[in-house]
Amino acid sequence: MDFEETNIDEAQSLIEGRNAVREAFRAGKTVDRLYVQEKLRDGPVLDLIHRAKKTDAVVDYVTKERLDKMSQTGHHQGVIAHVAAYEYAQVEDILERARERGESPFLFVLDEIEDPHNLGAIIRTANLCGAHGVIIPKRRSAGLTAAVFRASAGAVSFTPVARVNNLSQTIDELKQEGLWFVCADMDGDVMYDLNLTGPIGVVIGSEGSGVGRLVKQQCDMIASIPMKGDIDSLNASVAAGVLAYEIVRQRMKKG
Amino acid sequence: MDFEETNIDEAQSLIEGRNAVREAFRAGKTVDRLYVQEKLRDGPVLDLIHRAKKTDAVVDYVTKERLDKMSQTGHHQGVIAHVAAYEYAQVEDILERARERGESPFLFVLDEIEDPHNLGAIIRTANLCGAHGVIIPKRRSAGLTAAVFRASAGAVSFTPVARVNNLSQTIDELKQEGLWFVCADMDGDVMYDLNLTGPIGVVIGSEGSGVGRLVKQQCDMIASIPMKGDIDSLNASVAAGVLAYEIVRQRMKKG
Repeated sequence: MDFEETNIDEAQSLIEGRNAVREAFRAGKTVDRLYVQEKLRDGPVLDLIHRAKKTDAVVDYVTKERLDKMSQTGHHQGVIAHVAAYEYAQVEDILERARERGESPFLFVLDEIEDPHNLGAIIRTANLCGAHGVIIPKRRSAGLTAAVFRASAGAVSFTPVARVNNLSQTIDELKQEGLWFVCADMDGDVMYDLNLTGPIGVVIGSEGSGVGRLVKQQCDMIASIPMKGDIDSLNASVAAGVLAYEIVRQRMKKG
Repeated sequence: MDFEETNIDEAQSLIEGRNAVREAFRAGKTVDRLYVQEKLRDGPVLDLIHRAKKTDAVVDYVTKERLDKMSQTGHHQGVIAHVAAYEYAQVEDILERARERGESPFLFVLDEIEDPHNLGAIIRTANLCGAHGVIIPKRRSAGLTAAVFRASAGAVSFTPVARVNNLSQTIDELKQEGLWFVCADMDGDVMYDLNLTGPIGVVIGSEGSGVGRLVKQQCDMIASIPMKGDIDSLNASVAAGVLAYEIVRQRMKKG
C-alpha cells in the first residue's frame, strides 16, 4: 500500500490567520498546537489562546520571524494553528480493543518521538505486530499530521493513537490496570532473557536522548537489544520493531 | 550520536556544469550517476559520457526541464553529476571482514531501496547487529549520499557498502562461497521456525514492490514476519531490523 500518491498535502495541516484559526476551533478540528506571536495580546488573540487551552492544545509563543518563516500564505496575522490530520483516541479505547480481542493489552508509549517518519513507522509496526494502540505525549512529540499518516502507510486509520498530558501519570494508571512496562536501553537485560508475555507497554525513547529519567524509573523491565557495532543506537522505529517482534515471538511460543 | 548538526550538505553531492563534472572525474570522485540532457552530443559531453561509462557510473538521459529543476546553480550546461558522499567497498571486503572476525558471513542485500532514510537506517542496523556489510545495486537504489550518511547515524563510515551491477549474479557468486540467502516475504515460513545460523545474506525488497521475482527465486529460504494488522507490510528498514535480530537471537542461542 503506498500513500505517497494521495492528495494529502502536509501544507493542509497548517491554518493561518485569526479567522481561519477561529473557524478551525469552531468546526471542532483537533488543534495540536497554536503558535502565537509573542507579546500579541489583543481580544481576538486572547480568544484563540482561551480556545486552545480549553481544548488542550499546546500554546507556543514565538517570534514574528518564526511565524513568517512557517507561513505559507504570508498572512498569518500573528497566529498559526497546527491541526491534527486524524483524530486522537483515548487511552481507554486502547484497553477496550485488547478486551474486545480477548488479548493481554500490548501498547506502545513513545517518549518524545519528534520525527514524523519514525512516528509513522512505529504506528505501522504497532498495527502489524498486533499491538492495541500507541500513546504519545502532548509536548515534544510529532502529532498525527499528514506526513505521519503517509509514513504509517495508512495504519493511523486502524490503530488508535492517544495523546496524553503526562506520560508518567498515564503509565502509573496503566500499571494499576495490570500492565508491565519495558523500555529499551543499553544497560538493561538482554531482551531474549526477559519474560515479555504479559500485559505490556513498550516504552521507546527519543532519537537524541533515549527514554527520560522519570519514565525509565517507572519501567518494570529494561530490555537491551544486543549491539555489536561502532555507533550508539538503532533508529527509534527499528528499535521499536525489534522489541515488538521479540514480544510477538514470546507470545506465539507461549500461545 | 546525532549527525543532523554536521555541516554536510546534501547539495554538495550534485556537481553541475561541464568543467566541474570533468574535474570531479579527474579527481577520482565516485560519480554515482551522470544526468545528460537528451540529444546533447558535442565533444565535451561525449567525453563525460565516456568517463562515466569507464567508471561504471549510471548515465541517465533526461529533458532540459528536468535538469533545470535539479539545478541549484542555474548553470548546468546540460550535465549534472551525482557524486557519492562516501566510498563504496567491494563485495570481497565484506567477506574479508567476516574472515577477520572469525565469523560466518552475515550481510544484507538491498533490492532497490530508493528512500535514503530507509537505506541509512538499514546500514545503521547492519552495523549494530554485527553484519559484515551491505550490498546494493547500481540501478534503482539510493546511493551513499549525505542524506544516507545522516540517516545511518554515521554507520556508513564503519560498515562496508558494495554496489554491484547485477544483484542476481552477485547472489550466485556468494552462494558458491557457501552463503545461504533468505528474503522476507509474506508467503514464507514463519522466521522463528527457520534455521538462520549459518553464513547468510538477508535480502530486503523495495517499499513498493518487495523483492524482485528473479532474486526471490534465488533465495534458499523465504521468511515471513508474522503480521496481524490491517495494512500490508512493515517499513523496509523495520522489516530488515526485525529479521536481522532474529538472526542475532539464533546465533546467540547457538554460540
